Amino acid sequence: MTLQAADIPPVPSIEDPALRQRLQARLDAKTKPLGALGRLEQLALQIGQVLGTEAPQLHAPQMLVCAADHGLAARGVSAYPADVTWQMVRNFLSGGAAVSVLARQHGLALTVVDCGVLQPTPPQPGLVQRRIAAGTADALQAPAMSAQQCAQAIANGREVVRGLPGNALLLGEMGIGNSSSAALLLARLSGQDIDACTGAGTGLDAQALARKRAVLREVLAVHAQARTPLQALAAFGGFEIATLVGAVLQAAQERRLVVLDGFIASSAVLVAHALAPQVVQRCVAAHQSAEPGHALLLRLLGLQPLLQMDLRLGEGSGAALAWPLLESACRILSDMASFESAGVSGPA
Amino acid sequence: MTLQAADIPPVPSIEDPALRQRLQARLDAKTKPLGALGRLEQLALQIGQVLGTEAPQLHAPQMLVCAADHGLAARGVSAYPADVTWQMVRNFLSGGAAVSVLARQHGLALTVVDCGVLQPTPPQPGLVQRRIAAGTADALQAPAMSAQQCAQAIANGREVVRGLPGNALLLGEMGIGNSSSAALLLARLSGQDIDACTGAGTGLDAQALARKRAVLREVLAVHAQARTPLQALAAFGGFEIATLVGAVLQAAQERRLVVLDGFIASSAVLVAHALAPQVVQRCVAAHQSAEPGHALLLRLLGLQPLLQMDLRLGEGSGAALAWPLLESACRILSDMASFESAGVSGPA
Repeated sequence: MTLQAADIPPVPSIEDPALRQRLQARLDAKTKPLGALGRLEQLALQIGQVLGTEAPQLHAPQMLVCAADHGLAARGVSAYPADVTWQMVRNFLSGGAAVSVLARQHGLALTVVDCGVLQPTPPQPGLVQRRIAAGTADALQAPAMSAQQCAQAIANGREVVRGLPGNALLLGEMGIGNSSSAALLLARLSGQDIDACTGAGTGLDAQALARKRAVLREVLAVHAQARTPLQALAAFGGFEIATLVGAVLQAAQERRLVVLDGFIASSAVLVAHALAPQVVQRCVAAHQSAEPGHALLLRLLGLQPLLQMDLRLGEGSGAALAWPLLESACRILSDMASFESAGVSGPA
Repeated sequence: MTLQAADIPPVPSIEDPALRQRLQARLDAKTKPLGALGRLEQLALQIGQVLGTEAPQLHAPQMLVCAADHGLAARGVSAYPADVTWQMVRNFLSGGAAVSVLARQHGLALTVVDCGVLQPTPPQPGLVQRRIAAGTADALQAPAMSAQQCAQAIANGREVVRGLPGNALLLGEMGIGNSSSAALLLARLSGQDIDACTGAGTGLDAQALARKRAVLREVLAVHAQARTPLQALAAFGGFEIATLVGAVLQAAQERRLVVLDGFIASSAVLVAHALAPQVVQRCVAAHQSAEPGHALLLRLLGLQPLLQMDLRLGEGSGAALAWPLLESACRILSDMASFESAGVSGPA
């Protein structure tokens, strides 16, 4: 399988000036000074437009955590051994990881997709097997994946989302070494220097970070010809990112709200945006992580993060943490009284 | 009644290095890179220390909205007429205000205290009558309240909190004109110029803001002798702020967690902090509002806000919005697996 045009679904603009005006009028009639709920009002406007209604309601939100391993991890680009990927997959499923705890707090359904973890996890509820291979190739020697594998991973992401209920998708990921893939994708698609795109990930010291940057610079040079979004995705990986690209495209086509997490999940949105620019209309940036490339990436997408809490965990933890703000935005629209209904005076 | 020493309860330090160390060790054993949950970990450390336990649990959180009117409102310092205070009190109680909607979303018990609203509201569930007078005096002509009234309002706040269950207090307020009181308190207690402390409140235009600043500068000059925190509180008002000062002191003495809202609620904490500096150990700044004095005030208290969403509504709306983050901080401590319990490898 190589990528067909049909694999990139059409993602039309959702701009609707009349709806936007009705949403704004509804917000302005609520018992508060004009604009006094700040970013929450902008969020309400966006959610209303994504869901195509003046009274948006979020239902059955889905936290999708895509996991895979990375050949590049053998080059010492992460502070943790690759075994942590499969160990954390099991931790997600048994409920002990940060994203599991936060998803439970907020009633988010958690689905873990094994997109190509080194050690498979036995079948169990909440686990979806869409393994492309046992980890990507070492991107220093070859493309992380073939064009066929890349297309398959994107198709997998689309198919998984098609099977999920609800109207909101929260993005999560796990894969030791995947902040390197995200940095490489950002550098190639933005033209920024790799050093500006690369951070300490889960906790490299200064020396290890310098080594990571040198390795990534070399990887970029090896794949100097990988210029298109799909070529870059195949060259730099990983399977979890490619699967998330498909998930984002599918969710956008279905007009689900897409909630970004940190640097790696956002790198999948960067690729999806390069393939279908209107994707970003459906996207909410949950937070800006401590990973320096993330601020750069969000600026490129034109997204302003809801939270800035120096998170650098991934998994979808930041998306889960921000979730109640999205619920609040909807409730403001649906549950607040208007000046008229509450008998409150307007400005003097 | 004038203020007795006994009216300012002792608020001892809660510093406990051994507990702090145990909390930090507990966080560090969780399945995440050290410090990867950023501000959420700092929040967990703080809540654990306030509640005096390694496994803090928040229960029966109380949203306390204190409301009163201001004589200074007649000077045109607000965009809204004073009638909005009593109208909003009724809106809080009937469930249509932003704080009502957000409190409902998060299971926060809402208590509205009439501390001196121009028009009383008939008795009903959720309303507590602790009226000092029908609004403060015009601070341009006389102290907003007498020392006796100030002491009574503080005593009221203490007594109201004593009667509330739970271990967390969220601060809210309503009072047309009360961003002027907050600006005056900030200017007097910080020594900052009044212009830096004064903003557009609920939405003054540039001309009206200039007028507000001129009025407040005059009020400061009239009460040049009001130098102590209690003198300043009496001079500048209002009854809702004084009642909140008492509420904060009582909550701090009982080691409840105190969640600040915007500029006006925070100005009550500024006064409480001046009376009992350790109050601030119990305080979480929910957000930094769009009102320019708020950033200045939070810096003085040494508090870093959780959210920055350009809110400028008050009522407790920002405190309610941030509440799930506090719950998340506790759940990280109590519900996440450790590296050992989950069988996850540490750094390579």
